[in-house]
Amino acid sequence: MSEIDEGFLIAVEEARQSFAEGGVPIGACLVSKDGKVLGRGHNSRVQKGSATLHGEISALENSGRLPASAYAGATMYTTLSPCDMCTGACILYKVARVVIGENKNFVGGEEYLKKRGIEVIVFENKECMGLMEKFINEKPHVWNEDIGEP
Amino acid sequence: MSEIDEGFLIAVEEARQSFAEGGVPIGACLVSKDGKVLGRGHNSRVQKGSATLHGEISALENSGRLPASAYAGATMYTTLSPCDMCTGACILYKVARVVIGENKNFVGGEEYLKKRGIEVIVFENKECMGLMEKFINEKPHVWNEDIGEP
Repeated sequence: MSEIDEGFLIAVEEARQSFAEGGVPIGACLVSKDGKVLGRGHNSRVQKGSATLHGEISALENSGRLPASAYAGATMYTTLSPCDMCTGACILYKVARVVIGENKNFVGGEEYLKKRGIEVIVFENKECMGLMEKFINEKPHVWNEDIGEP
Repeated sequence: MSEIDEGFLIAVEEARQSFAEGGVPIGACLVSKDGKVLGRGHNSRVQKGSATLHGEISALENSGRLPASAYAGATMYTTLSPCDMCTGACILYKVARVVIGENKNFVGGEEYLKKRGIEVIVFENKECMGLMEKFINEKPHVWNEDIGEP
């Protein structure tokens, strides 16, 4: 797994797109065991007024209805450490691995993922960090809303 | 909390509606601390081809964008023990309590909810049990898909 994997590049593209739209800049991409992109998406709190379409949930949703076999060995790429909801979604569908762009701006359920048998890889990707840092500084109230903080 | 609470009655109504539509019969309703219904919904795997619109996610989504204060003291009513994704969603938004119609057909993240400080109440509601049992017997492949099982 590296920062030039197609799945990671797509996740970053999605994060950039969300930022450009004025939304929370978190993107994700679900890739099957054999390297096929199953779905991609970004946080849509601002764009769709959504409380549940975080990056990973969007990528899962855009992957459509799939049997359990489709998730076996799959990798969820996400630009930011996943919140508890997205952590749970990765556990529900038993993806093999979660690859995270950065966890400096937020640390989610990484330890719980590991405890539930999912491999976790964290990059310290500067672009992911920069986008989040800029967003949090510009729109702290939206970010707090997104993670259920006052 | 009782089986005649408005929130629970709505969750059961949603489950019945989903069953009537040919969908997974799980409904949910989010109620604020002061008793206001914030949102309601049901599993929409079949109806919308959705991998993420479980009952609780639908109820959260239909509640719209809310600040953390709106979830403080809130209760998530759901007709079935919540899967790992829905468990995580309740933890993300820090609802105070999850009230569950039944956990005979499926046991989800109840222990993890408690560990994360959320009160869990389980009824042994016969209608909830009956709807799920009937659905699982009739469409086991859809149910397995919904919980990421082969």
